[in-house]
Formats: sequence, structure tokens, C-alpha cells
Amino acid sequence: MIKVGILGATGYAGQEAIRILLRHKDVKITELARFSDTDEPISAVFPEFKGRIDLVCKKIDPEAIAKNVDFVFLGLPHKAAMDIVPVFMKAGKSAIDISADYRLAPDVYKMWYGAEHKDKANLSKAVYGLPELYYSDIKKAKLIANPGCYPTSVILGIAPALKAKAIDPKNIIADSKSGTSGAGRKPDSALSFCEVNENLKAYKVNEHQHSPEINKILSAVSGGAINIVFTPHLIPMNRGILSTIYLRLNKKLDTKAVLDIYKDFYKGKPFVRISDEGKFPQIKDVVCTNYCDIGLKVTGETLIVISCIDNLTKGAAGQAIQNMNIMAGFDETEGLL
Amino acid sequence: MIKVGILGATGYAGQEAIRILLRHKDVKITELARFSDTDEPISAVFPEFKGRIDLVCKKIDPEAIAKNVDFVFLGLPHKAAMDIVPVFMKAGKSAIDISADYRLAPDVYKMWYGAEHKDKANLSKAVYGLPELYYSDIKKAKLIANPGCYPTSVILGIAPALKAKAIDPKNIIADSKSGTSGAGRKPDSALSFCEVNENLKAYKVNEHQHSPEINKILSAVSGGAINIVFTPHLIPMNRGILSTIYLRLNKKLDTKAVLDIYKDFYKGKPFVRISDEGKFPQIKDVVCTNYCDIGLKVTGETLIVISCIDNLTKGAAGQAIQNMNIMAGFDETEGLL
Amino acid sequence: MIKVGILGATGYAGQEAIRILLRHKDVKITELARFSDTDEPISAVFPEFKGRIDLVCKKIDPEAIAKNVDFVFLGLPHKAAMDIVPVFMKAGKSAIDISADYRLAPDVYKMWYGAEHKDKANLSKAVYGLPELYYSDIKKAKLIANPGCYPTSVILGIAPALKAKAIDPKNIIADSKSGTSGAGRKPDSALSFCEVNENLKAYKVNEHQHSPEINKILSAVSGGAINIVFTPHLIPMNRGILSTIYLRLNKKLDTKAVLDIYKDFYKGKPFVRISDEGKFPQIKDVVCTNYCDIGLKVTGETLIVISCIDNLTKGAAGQAIQNMNIMAGFDETEGLL
Amino acid sequence: MIKVGILGATGYAGQEAIRILLRHKDVKITELARFSDTDEPISAVFPEFKGRIDLVCKKIDPEAIAKNVDFVFLGLPHKAAMDIVPVFMKAGKSAIDISADYRLAPDVYKMWYGAEHKDKANLSKAVYGLPELYYSDIKKAKLIANPGCYPTSVILGIAPALKAKAIDPKNIIADSKSGTSGAGRKPDSALSFCEVNENLKAYKVNEHQHSPEINKILSAVSGGAINIVFTPHLIPMNRGILSTIYLRLNKKLDTKAVLDIYKDFYKGKPFVRISDEGKFPQIKDVVCTNYCDIGLKVTGETLIVISCIDNLTKGAAGQAIQNMNIMAGFDETEGLL
Repeated sequence: MIKVGILGATGYAGQEAIRILLRHKDVKITELARFSDTDEPISAVFPEFKGRIDLVCKKIDPEAIAKNVDFVFLGLPHKAAMDIVPVFMKAGKSAIDISADYRLAPDVYKMWYGAEHKDKANLSKAVYGLPELYYSDIKKAKLIANPGCYPTSVILGIAPALKAKAIDPKNIIADSKSGTSGAGRKPDSALSFCEVNENLKAYKVNEHQHSPEINKILSAVSGGAINIVFTPHLIPMNRGILSTIYLRLNKKLDTKAVLDIYKDFYKGKPFVRISDEGKFPQIKDVVCTNYCDIGLKVTGETLIVISCIDNLTKGAAGQAIQNMNIMAGFDETEGLL
Repeated sequence: MIKVGILGATGYAGQEAIRILLRHKDVKITELARFSDTDEPISAVFPEFKGRIDLVCKKIDPEAIAKNVDFVFLGLPHKAAMDIVPVFMKAGKSAIDISADYRLAPDVYKMWYGAEHKDKANLSKAVYGLPELYYSDIKKAKLIANPGCYPTSVILGIAPALKAKAIDPKNIIADSKSGTSGAGRKPDSALSFCEVNENLKAYKVNEHQHSPEINKILSAVSGGAINIVFTPHLIPMNRGILSTIYLRLNKKLDTKAVLDIYKDFYKGKPFVRISDEGKFPQIKDVVCTNYCDIGLKVTGETLIVISCIDNLTKGAAGQAIQNMNIMAGFDETEGLL
Repeated sequence: MIKVGILGATGYAGQEAIRILLRHKDVKITELARFSDTDEPISAVFPEFKGRIDLVCKKIDPEAIAKNVDFVFLGLPHKAAMDIVPVFMKAGKSAIDISADYRLAPDVYKMWYGAEHKDKANLSKAVYGLPELYYSDIKKAKLIANPGCYPTSVILGIAPALKAKAIDPKNIIADSKSGTSGAGRKPDSALSFCEVNENLKAYKVNEHQHSPEINKILSAVSGGAINIVFTPHLIPMNRGILSTIYLRLNKKLDTKAVLDIYKDFYKGKPFVRISDEGKFPQIKDVVCTNYCDIGLKVTGETLIVISCIDNLTKGAAGQAIQNMNIMAGFDETEGLL
Repeated sequence: MIKVGILGATGYAGQEAIRILLRHKDVKITELARFSDTDEPISAVFPEFKGRIDLVCKKIDPEAIAKNVDFVFLGLPHKAAMDIVPVFMKAGKSAIDISADYRLAPDVYKMWYGAEHKDKANLSKAVYGLPELYYSDIKKAKLIANPGCYPTSVILGIAPALKAKAIDPKNIIADSKSGTSGAGRKPDSALSFCEVNENLKAYKVNEHQHSPEINKILSAVSGGAINIVFTPHLIPMNRGILSTIYLRLNKKLDTKAVLDIYKDFYKGKPFVRISDEGKFPQIKDVVCTNYCDIGLKVTGETLIVISCIDNLTKGAAGQAIQNMNIMAGFDETEGLL
């Protein structure tokens, strides 16, 4: 039984982490905290937890929390984690940062997030927490940079074909559609029901801050510089990301042959499911699960890949707990099925 | 051709007023304004208007606007209109206030809106703009207190039975369900898509600020003090109010007899439609229209009335323009069909 | 470890039962069946189950199924269960019928469902599976009539006040709002997305088939004949029922006093949560849970009670499994938290 | 004043045509018909029309209808129009077919719709009713093949760049997202609210029947064979199509230069609006309008074009009425603003 704290417990990722950890047999939640001077029972913020957990969500005090946890999840706004993570590293605790703070090299981070990185020492040791690609590194890590939601769906959809050198690395397009919880829990009239419902729009067209993250990891997979075209869209639904990915085959392969590449790549990975030929995944089959469902089709020289996740589970809190399971030596799927 | 200004042009009621007035043959919109120091073309705020109207939405300057309009619509937050209306009254212009500022007696207003009324002189002359009840007063008015959205649906659903003395005035329940645009256009995390979608809740249970307005008008209809039980609910849809009203008959009447009372009451009223026996109205038949659809059923001593409107049209901007049509001597339905 | 079968596994209640039972530590699903001549893996019908359960959903063959289960859940259309239940009773197995077939006396059943009851022998032994009212009967039962979704929310909202003789039993109004899954999984253009979305309507106004079920149980609670006014509404959301209930107090009680009656009534019941004074429940806090959340307010002589459940969980499959837990001697909450 | 009939008046396109024609000053609707033996007032099918139009929707009798109309709109299932159109052509009337029956060459039609074409004579005279491309042909036509919804959004988004020979015609990808009304008004459990809401999926991946239509028209624009990659997606909203189109520039052009090409191409076209640099269109600005809003961005060699329409207006009934306006010599925008 390990002791776990959640910083940023009142955001959507924090809420999802609580939900999952409440059914995790090897974990006890011991600390909940947020940026606020008001202490409040978590069930006052999220009445769904009434009768299930009676912890008070406190103001973030890293030193105090570090004494009472083995693992900490940070579901904080970007730029906040890098002030806090050092405390936990110094105290010898394990940390999983759900923000972008430990995902990018300092210069790229500065370009996209507009701030100098303040914790380069730990940044250099952080492991990118995509278990389907970096399992053994995660097993040994103390600090995880948990992947972004779009990157999770896009990278998992492209990596097998790229690794197999089956596609042109210069010609990658990802058209992603996300539910609204991806934007976080905050007052913003652009996210109000009447603006999102019965609407649909592209945003940050090829200039989303997840682009450098996708490019960094795909470049590592490919061994050469990758620079994809990436268009995110906002969809009137709460949860889920579906990425439709357009790739150019550089050898003659049919759908079945590519499916074999993907099935082989993800063999033994409990959270990736490959659809049979002629079938494609849909959001509702992955919502509230940690699965990434992938379907694909070859048409001429084009390989169309469709990759689906729940942005709050596999795209955030679920993957974070999958990482914790690996780091702590638990069953990788504990709490997640 | 009259000249019309809209104050609060960037709210949902203002937007709806622009939409309707753009197809009104006797009106030219000459002024758009809001509380903001930034001048901006209205099509920059609402791109739907691109190519249709090229007015700039300016900071509210009542004196300047009064010189360039015959009629003014005020779609401002409560407590703002009473500072501005006097300017238009003094200039001899007609004003239709969509807020609550001219609907209640000063003491009641203070109790529910928490402010002293600053324009009692004009308040005493304002006419409650529910044309189905106050047509001839509206015709002569210079200042209209445009009804609230809930009151419109509830009062129209109850008035005929109450006027006919067919029901117990002490035993009136209105269970109202509203789309989210009723809450206005503003940043508020409680109104964000993820909070409203796949959710449903009652709020301000029997303490909504529309209660005194409903009670005031129904008391006037009845000739005695009315104090209804009123529960509003927030529904995951953009537009529309459906009120399910429970009344106690004080004489033996069947559904057909009550339908006759309602049909008779609304004879010649172009925007009220009474459903045939066995049929009930639904939101989608009134959305984006100025209709109030009403259906009813007698069961034992209980009369169930269902009353539907679009909260932004009959519940706000549409009714305001219906009032303008009556005041200006236009066809009552101009721009509204 | 008991063996469980689900008949009607491809309906929404069947799907929900599978979801819950997959995380139930004392159960193994051994049989899935439906009315269809096509055998199909359940994961072909519901791809969400891919990799989680590989059973084939077969044509219903009660005799064969009875040999391979200890418990059976019947999530079939009304009028189908009464042909099948006798087989399981004869084989000494336990059955939980989620349809209406074992809820009503034969004459009432015939009036509302239009068919003669074919299994009066077992009907007389069936126990109404509302654990908060009939725990000890359920414990001894072999056949459960699992409550309807509306009745669950309405009865739980009224029973404490009625039992305490605090309200007028002749003056009960329930205004219920349901998500669309309550209508079942079937082709019906009235249930299509475009008809339900951005719409809201009342239906079967005071003539819903759940009325006699509510009246029967409330009459038993009260000791006299109850005949409530009941208006169901269809809401554009997938899951959840919120019932707003209007009762007339027959003694002077304030909100706090009534809250005490409710808290006392549900003391020790793990799935009913009473909101604090001034708070009211909302759908999203009970969705995908087996909770019934209840809030209330006294205003004058009126008691307003708001009762929320998930129609597929506490209103169908979750409650069915709660019943199974009680019957089998498991922890009442196993699989349900 | 011309007399107009609508066949298929009870489908979504028929309903939309009625809505628009009711505010068209030069048109009188004289006939409404559908495939059904039951005559019914149209307001019984669509209560929104109560008090606005009292025509009875009759069984389709082309000869009888032809005597009482100048123009006919056919909003019928594919394969039905080709039996009926000849009657109207023979009678010298004008017809606008909203189905696919007159859009494709007979062999292509057979391949995609599975039927021999039965009216090749009129097929050869039919004009493709996309006014932004074929205005002068439409002006002289008696029979219009009204474009499909996806083709309208995709072709308008690509034609200017293709015509200007600015892009590689071999490398065109259209990723389209459609509201659910595009699937028509019919009982289908895959279209039910609970299946579509909180879900998102691709379907008919690169094998949608609109592909040959898009390819045919783009080939004509380009002067060479075009074969695009096309992925449609189903979105949980009622109305609207947003197509995100990925093109490869074959010359060095920046965003501004491409915007100039588009603005020039659509100069004087009342229903195409080009977004300013840095802005992109969204569904809610075109819903219930006949506009096609287009925004674009150059990134490296890729040109991303985003094109938005309302599938029932510009994608069906609105465009049909735009065609009628042109054919009849009315103002092109009459009834459509």
C-alpha cells in the first residue's frame, strides 16, 4: 500500500485521478491540494465523492505533502510544476507531472510556453511517460513527464509505421478532434455551453503547443527530424480525442500488412487495441477507459490511421496511474480496467 | 423606417435582436453599443454578421445615441438600465428594457436585486411588455419593461385559467426547464460545456429572482395575492424554456373545456398556439420563433399545463420587437415570422 | 465465485450489467444471450468490451443457460421475461428481472402492458427489489422484480416523508426528467439525435406505465391508496433521472426537520446520500454510480424534494446487482463503488 | 409569384425548404408530397408550421403536381427522383433534384448507388447546381442536380487553388466533420441520441458515395483526373459541416497570396465569405444560413483550408432555392438572408 498525493485535485485531471485511485487496491490517497487559500473537503468541490473520500483539499505546501506521500501527481497549470517538483525529488519521492513542464528541452519550452525553465537538473532526468514506447525507462524513473492528450493519440497512431520505416517522415498530417474537458476546468466564455454546443471549430491551426512534443517524440522514434502538420478541433462532447492521421506509404503495403506491423508493435501492450480490417474505432468505446483504439486503411499511397483515447484517462490521469503502476511494480492495469 | 439602437449588443439578447431586426422591413439599426472601451465592428464579435451589417459596436454614450435613434433596446445587466433610460425618456425616445430594472416596485426590486431604484419617476410609467395581456397599454407606452423569460412562459400558461377563476390561486406550482443561454454570455465555470452537458440540475429552488415578477403579474390578473412555487432547472441545450405547471381546478372541468378557455383567451393573438387535446408542445417547435406553444390536460382535480417558448425570442428580443411593432404601429408580427 | 448469465445482453441495461460485473470480484459471467438467431461475440456488438470479455452472445435458450448459471439477469422487453423466468425457478436458480413483468398485480399489468400474465405462480413470490425498502425480503428471495427507473427515483424521494405521515398522501406531484437511454436501444426516429438534441418535451403526461408501479409501492408504504400526478420529460442527455417532487406538508416542519426524517430513514443505506440544507443534487454526481442523491426544501406548506439517479445503474443494472449482492450474501456494495 | 411544390416534404431537406420558402416574397408553396398513403397536414408532421402553412402533405402524384407548380424540389431518397423528374420535364416545368440522381455519369452512378440510371435523356441535360462555379449554366437550366452537402463544402474549399494551378492535384485530402441531420430523418439505431451523443467516429473511410461527385467536379475544374482522399466523420451536433482540407502547394505562396486567390475567385458571390488572415470559420456562424465560410493558412508546403456550411441550407435546401432564384430571375439571395 503506497501513499499518494494529488496536487491540482480540483481540475479535471485531478478529479479523474481521484476516481481511479479510489478503486486501486494498492494505493491510499493521503493528500489533496490546490492553489487556493480556502481549505475545503473535496466532496464540497465534487459532490460525486460524498461518502467515498473525506479528505480536505488544502493549499499546496510541497514540503508538508512530501512527508506524507510516496508518490505525487501534479495536475497543475503549465509553469507551476517546475517550482514544486524539486521538493519531491529532494525528499526522494516519485513524481508524475501531468503538465508540460518536463516534456521539452528548455529552449523549445521557452518558445512555446513563454518561460525560462527553472528546474533543468530534474528536467534532464525526467522520463516521457508513454509506456508503450518507454516502458523500461519508466520502470526506473523517479520523475515522469506525463504525455499530453493530443500527443498520446497522435504518437501511438504513427509510431509503428514510422519505426517500420513504412512511411515518408516528411509528409505527416494529424487532424485531431477533442472533447471540451481537454481545455481544463476554468471560467472562459469561449468554453461556455452555448459557445461549444452545436458548434465545431479548428483552433491554433498548426500552432498548438502540443506540436513540439509530438515532433520531439516522433523524431526520436524515426531517427530524423519530424515536423508534422497538426490541426486540433474542438468538439461538443465532454471527453475523448479522435485523431485522423494521413501518412504517405513509401513502399507497397496493403491494409492487412500494415495492420500486422501495428499488431506486432503493440503485442503485449494491455492498453492498445487494433481494430480488425474494415473496422474503425470510435470515442464511446474508449471513454472512461485507459485504452487507445487504433484502426487503419490503406488507399493508394495513403495510409489513414484513426486513433482514439479518452483525453482525461489515457490522455492524462489514467496514463499517469499506468506509469505509477509500472514504477511501483504493481500490475500495469491495476485500477484501470 | 425607424432608427433603432441596441445597448448591450454583444449579449445573447442583443445578438438575437440584431438577427431579427436585419430582416425587419421598417427598421434600420443605427447604433450598437456595449460597456467596453474598445470599439469593434459587430462582425468581429459575432462573425455570423459578416457581410450583413458593418456597424461598429461602440462604448455606451446615451446622449449621443439618443440623437440617432427613435427606439432603443437595452439588453444590459440588471441595475444598469435605470441609469440610462432617463436620458432616452428626456429626449422623447422610446425604450424597451430587457433587464429587470422596470418590472418591479422599488421595495421588491431592492429585496431581489439588492439595490435602491434610481429612476422611480419612469418606473411608475413603464408598461409590462407582455402583449397578450397588456396590448393597449403597450400601444401608448414610451417605456417598456420587457418580461423575463421564465415569467413569459409561466404567466402565459396560467393567466387564462386564473382569469376564468377556474383554479385555486393558492396552489400553483411551476416547474421550469431552461436552456443555458438564459444565463447570459459571460465567463463562468458553472456554465462551461463540461459542467452543463450530460448534467441537469435545479437551482435557486423557489428563490429565483423571477418569482416576484411572476407573482406580481399573476396577482394583477387574479385580483388577489398570488405566491407560486417555482423551481427552475438548467438543461443541456442552448435555447428554450419549457414550463410544466400544476394547477388545482376549483370546478369540474374536462380537458376540452379548459382548452376552450385558453383558445378563447388567446383568440387573435398571433404568437400563442394552443395544442389540440392529447398533444403537447416541445421546445424544437418554438426555437428561433416568437411563439408560445401551450398544451394542457386535466387529470382528476389537477390541471397540467405545458408552456414552451424560446427564451431569447419570445422570452427576450423577439418579444421586445413585438412590443416595438405595437408601439410603432407596425404589423405586430413584422420581422418575427 | 458465482456464475451469472445475462439475457438481453445487447440492450443498454445488459451492457451496463456487463460493465459492472466485469469488476465484481465474486462473479464470473458465463452466459450472454439475446433474441436473435445470430451468434456474435459481445465485443462485436459493443467494441468497448474488446480484450475484456470474449463470450459469444447467443440466442436465448433458457434450459441450456439454466445449467450454466447460479444467477440470471433478464434485461428483456416487457412481456418476454414471464415466458422465461419459470425455467430458472424450476431449476432452482435465482433470477432478477429488470423488465416490468413481475412488478404489478395481474389485472394492473394487463391494463398497462396489454397482456394477460402467464406466470402468476412466480409473480406471487417475486420481491420488489428496492433494497432501501425491502432489504430483508430481498435477502430471502429467489425472484426479484427489479424496480423501474422512474419509480426508483420517485419512491426513494417520497417514502420517508410518507412513512413519517408528514405529508398529504392525496397531493403528490412528481415531475421527472430522464436521459434518453431510458427509452432503450432500438431504431426509432423519435429517439434519433436530431429529434432529441436541442429539444425537450413532456410525454405520456400522467399516463406513463410507471405510474401504477409508483402508486403500488407508495400505497404499501402509506397504508392507503396513493395516486400521484406524474409527468415524465425527455432530456437531451444520455443518462440520468432527476425527479422534482412537490408534496404538501400536513404538519409544521422546517427544512432541517424534514432532512432529519430523511437521514434517519436512510441511515446505514450505502447508496442514498442526503444533501445538506441549501444544497441540491445534480445528475453528474450520480452518473455511472449506484447512488440516489436527495435534496429537499420546505417553502410554506410545500415540501420540494429533488431525487437523482443514473437510470441505467441505480435505475436498472446497478440496482439489480445490488439485489444480487444481498441475495448471495456478498457485500451490498461489491462492484458498485 | 411562382408556384412551387416540394416532394419529400417530410425529410429534413424538405422541412428546411418549407422554412425558407415561407419567407420568400416571390414564391407560393402550392404542393407538398411524400411517399406515404396517408394524407396529413404538414403541421401535424412538423408542429412548428402550425399557423404558418396549412397545406396537406399528400401522396406523390407527379402528374397531378406538375399541373399546379412552376418549380418542383425533390428531396427524395436516392433512386426515387429519376422516376419522377421526367414527368416534370415533359410538362415543361423546372425541377431541382436534391438527391444524387442527376449528379453522376450513368456508369459511376451504378457503381456507387447500385442501380441502372433510368433517365439518361434528362441526366445529360442536368446542370450541377453549384452557383459559385456554374452560374450561367444554372440560369439557362430546366433541371438542376443540386450538390451534395460534403461536395459543396469540399469543392468550394478547393476550387480556387486548383483553378489557379497553385496546388498538386494528386495530393488532396479532405477531412470532413458533419452534423447528424446529414444522415436524414429515419429510424436507425446507429443515429439514435445515445449512440451519437458523447461520441465521434469516422465512417465510410475513403469510400463515401460523395467521393465520385467531388472528384468529377474537381476534375472538371482542374482539367485532369482528380482522386482525393476523403474521410467523413459524424459529430454530435444537429447541423453543419466543417471540412479541413490539406493541399500541397506547387509554388511558393504565403497565406496572404492564397487568400487573394480565394477572394478574387469568389468576388461578387454573395454566399462565400473569406476569413481574414489568422481567422478561421466555425459552424455556428453559418448554421441556418446559406453561407460558405472559408479560412486558410499556409504552413511550409501545405495549404490548410477550412470550409464551413450548414448541410441543410447551403448543403441542400438553401442552395436549391439559390438555384431557383437564379433560374427564375429573382435576386440570388431572396429568402436566404
